Amino acid sequence: MVQLRLKEESARSLVEIARVVRMMIPDVPLIVNDRADVALAADADGVHVGVDDLSPALLRRIVPAGFIIGASVGSDDEVERSAGADYVGIGPVFATGSKADAGAAIGAARFAELAARCALPAVAIGGISAERVPEVLSVGADGIAVISSLFGAPDPTLAARALRSALDANGR
Amino acid sequence: MVQLRLKEESARSLVEIARVVRMMIPDVPLIVNDRADVALAADADGVHVGVDDLSPALLRRIVPAGFIIGASVGSDDEVERSAGADYVGIGPVFATGSKADAGAAIGAARFAELAARCALPAVAIGGISAERVPEVLSVGADGIAVISSLFGAPDPTLAARALRSALDANGR
Repeated sequence: MVQLRLKEESARSLVEIARVVRMMIPDVPLIVNDRADVALAADADGVHVGVDDLSPALLRRIVPAGFIIGASVGSDDEVERSAGADYVGIGPVFATGSKADAGAAIGAARFAELAARCALPAVAIGGISAERVPEVLSVGADGIAVISSLFGAPDPTLAARALRSALDANGR
Repeated sequence: MVQLRLKEESARSLVEIARVVRMMIPDVPLIVNDRADVALAADADGVHVGVDDLSPALLRRIVPAGFIIGASVGSDDEVERSAGADYVGIGPVFATGSKADAGAAIGAARFAELAARCALPAVAIGGISAERVPEVLSVGADGIAVISSLFGAPDPTLAARALRSALDANGR
């Protein structure tokens, strides 16, 4: 799935961009970062929230059944706050340059610990490459999230295929 | 009614503050600025949006029946964008120090022009004092919105009574 994350855009711009993305990739689940109202207005499939956003439990009360709620988890406090989400994004597992505010890498062992505590489908995020897919899957990741591995690659299509192959090779 | 407007707060803080306000003044309609998701999560009565937010028409599709949608109007473009709102806040009618981004005062005549074009209940905002109530009502205001006239007053209760009296004296 694709998560739309544009922290500097107004809600007005964000909903317009989301609706274009929605039309361009109608078969790919689309998740909007932070804003449930924008996600709903754009007919997106869900919203992804962090610790300073509305909590998954609160969001569940205001979205329709089947709406996807994802939550970022990087600490013990955030494990508790993720209750009610459909999945968690845990990281940054490895060092990343994609987000200035991502914090220090937590490592694969800590990922495994947080994933076990969440008891939700856990996506590994932060510095994930095709080479690192076996490692994160081996410590309990159900999926991976990437930015630079795709969009920083010379050929994003080839990069996507390499990621897909790495997942397939490990039974995902 | 009370509009909660805290541009610097996270959604997490905003919903907590809104829920406290909701409990403190259960009989006063509560409107949250900008964020429909926060308003819904806080059991507020509505949302108030500006030109960079989700439009009233889009919002109408994602909120329950009876949810109040207000829109700020200060220009001709914004008149069109207000379609679908329950009310418009038009201004700043007079100079205001409450909002750094409020723009130049539009004056009572321009207020009247914009209010007529909106064809919605029109609230005069910006530099409104009890003394100016007769003037804005005479040019078509259905109500007034204030910040500093209340919260900048030495005694907000007295100030509220003076505003109420000015409205009553003019049949509102």
